[in-house]
Amino acid sequence: MLVVLTGGTGGAKLIEGLAVEIDPAELAIICNTGDDAVFHGLYVSPDIDTIIYTLAGLSDSEKGWGIRGDTFTTLEQLRRLGNAAWFNLGDKDLATHITRTKLLKEGLKLCEVTERIRRQLGVQARILPMSDERVETRVQTPQGELSFQEFFVKERWAREVTSVSFVGAEQAQPAPGVLDAIHRAQAIVVCPSNPITSIGPILAVPGIRSALKQVSAPVLGVSPIIGGAAISGPAHKLMVASGFAASAAGVAGCYADFLDTLLIDDEDCPAVPAVEAFKVMAICTNIRMGDIAAKRRLAREVLALVKK
Amino acid sequence: MLVVLTGGTGGAKLIEGLAVEIDPAELAIICNTGDDAVFHGLYVSPDIDTIIYTLAGLSDSEKGWGIRGDTFTTLEQLRRLGNAAWFNLGDKDLATHITRTKLLKEGLKLCEVTERIRRQLGVQARILPMSDERVETRVQTPQGELSFQEFFVKERWAREVTSVSFVGAEQAQPAPGVLDAIHRAQAIVVCPSNPITSIGPILAVPGIRSALKQVSAPVLGVSPIIGGAAISGPAHKLMVASGFAASAAGVAGCYADFLDTLLIDDEDCPAVPAVEAFKVMAICTNIRMGDIAAKRRLAREVLALVKK
Repeated sequence: MLVVLTGGTGGAKLIEGLAVEIDPAELAIICNTGDDAVFHGLYVSPDIDTIIYTLAGLSDSEKGWGIRGDTFTTLEQLRRLGNAAWFNLGDKDLATHITRTKLLKEGLKLCEVTERIRRQLGVQARILPMSDERVETRVQTPQGELSFQEFFVKERWAREVTSVSFVGAEQAQPAPGVLDAIHRAQAIVVCPSNPITSIGPILAVPGIRSALKQVSAPVLGVSPIIGGAAISGPAHKLMVASGFAASAAGVAGCYADFLDTLLIDDEDCPAVPAVEAFKVMAICTNIRMGDIAAKRRLAREVLALVKK
Repeated sequence: MLVVLTGGTGGAKLIEGLAVEIDPAELAIICNTGDDAVFHGLYVSPDIDTIIYTLAGLSDSEKGWGIRGDTFTTLEQLRRLGNAAWFNLGDKDLATHITRTKLLKEGLKLCEVTERIRRQLGVQARILPMSDERVETRVQTPQGELSFQEFFVKERWAREVTSVSFVGAEQAQPAPGVLDAIHRAQAIVVCPSNPITSIGPILAVPGIRSALKQVSAPVLGVSPIIGGAAISGPAHKLMVASGFAASAAGVAGCYADFLDTLLIDDEDCPAVPAVEAFKVMAICTNIRMGDIAAKRRLAREVLALVKK
């Protein structure tokens, strides 16, 4: 059993490769829910959805979110009805949020809802929300606090960031199956996701970080940073705001207490000593995943390393 | 001020005509909400929506429900996600239900939500739900009880009906503005809607029927029945189950205690004595409304009669 910690876009690329290279039933994917938000009364879980859509073969890999070929008829009409509609929700995508909201209202836990949706879409990998409780990533800026989606989507991550917090994390529990999956894992992979706002919320749920420290199985990460910036998104900006360097070494710093190995880009080979100063082994390779061939190649490298 | 009592399809035709023939701001439309139902966690108010869409120029007059040219992308995906999707909800239409559900959850009353939606869609007529409280039309059959939508849409009104009830009606209050509109009305029109399940729930809300009896303004109805059957839908079947004849005279019987005049079809002229036996004046005319010209013509006849 391979356990994967992930956010959305970047993590989905590696997971797409992994799910081809091994039996997807052998994958347990622990997903960030710190970005979850309610739009128009509907509970949206962007990272879980990106992973499910990716594994169901529905994802829009051009845009990095949503369902391929989706239309936006309902959203346009929501706008016409006076709703603020800055968060893109496609018509097919909305069916997921409507279903999730209904099932949560009926009393199901987020983990149960996720299980039902992924099975219904034919996804074989287990998808585990980090927690069934609400943990909300908040971004502090000199002009006030924003939710992650306000910062990331509405403001296009343009604002200066002073710090990031995870409201509710201290009271949250890992979702059923999360700690068990970590303890039973033959290997653990930390995806090339934002260390602060994708992996950070997962690690903030009490019990998960300490479980990762305890396991004897290898824990391998893939850097989301090349040079001084994220391959996509605002990871570098948020890392600096959280006291880490915007670099491969900064990623190692985020995970130093539990990570054995970090794959960094060939371009970052000069950073190997800085990574290894955190007692994390650094391996240089091509970590860009521009197409399915590259995703599979990187997945094979990851699998070869953790099977050693 | 003209007050109109209505259900969906049939009533919408006359209202479409009325809104052309007089200033729509002079119309106060009291809508049935006994058919309201929750689908996929979304609060759907079919008659209010049909009236709003009609007056906003959005309605699908071919189908008699929903928005013209609407697509069904979300509904298809809801089906794929394992939801029973026998009630048609178009993508644009869904925006109404999502907005309504959100606003109700935020604590707004149904009348406030209705007001907001109709204004946002540029509808000038006042649209008043009969009540802000839940009144649920239930249809009793030998095989058990159904909600109105289960009977009407899911079962295509094929089942035998033994009786009809309005759960919650006794505890309900007329929505704000309903009784006031009736008392101030210069005339009241009962649309050619189903007397049992469209007008019936309105009359079942305590205070509305007695207000209609008290007013000195003329109260005029248009029959939804020609010969022994409804122009569309199951009115005749439900009238018989409720102890009325399936005829123009049966319609007069439903409203005998407050109706002054009933417009019946030329075809039903032989029924004039039977209608007038209820002390309701019968006027024969062409009550079919196949196109906008027919809707306007009947609306003009109605207006001429109540202005006398």
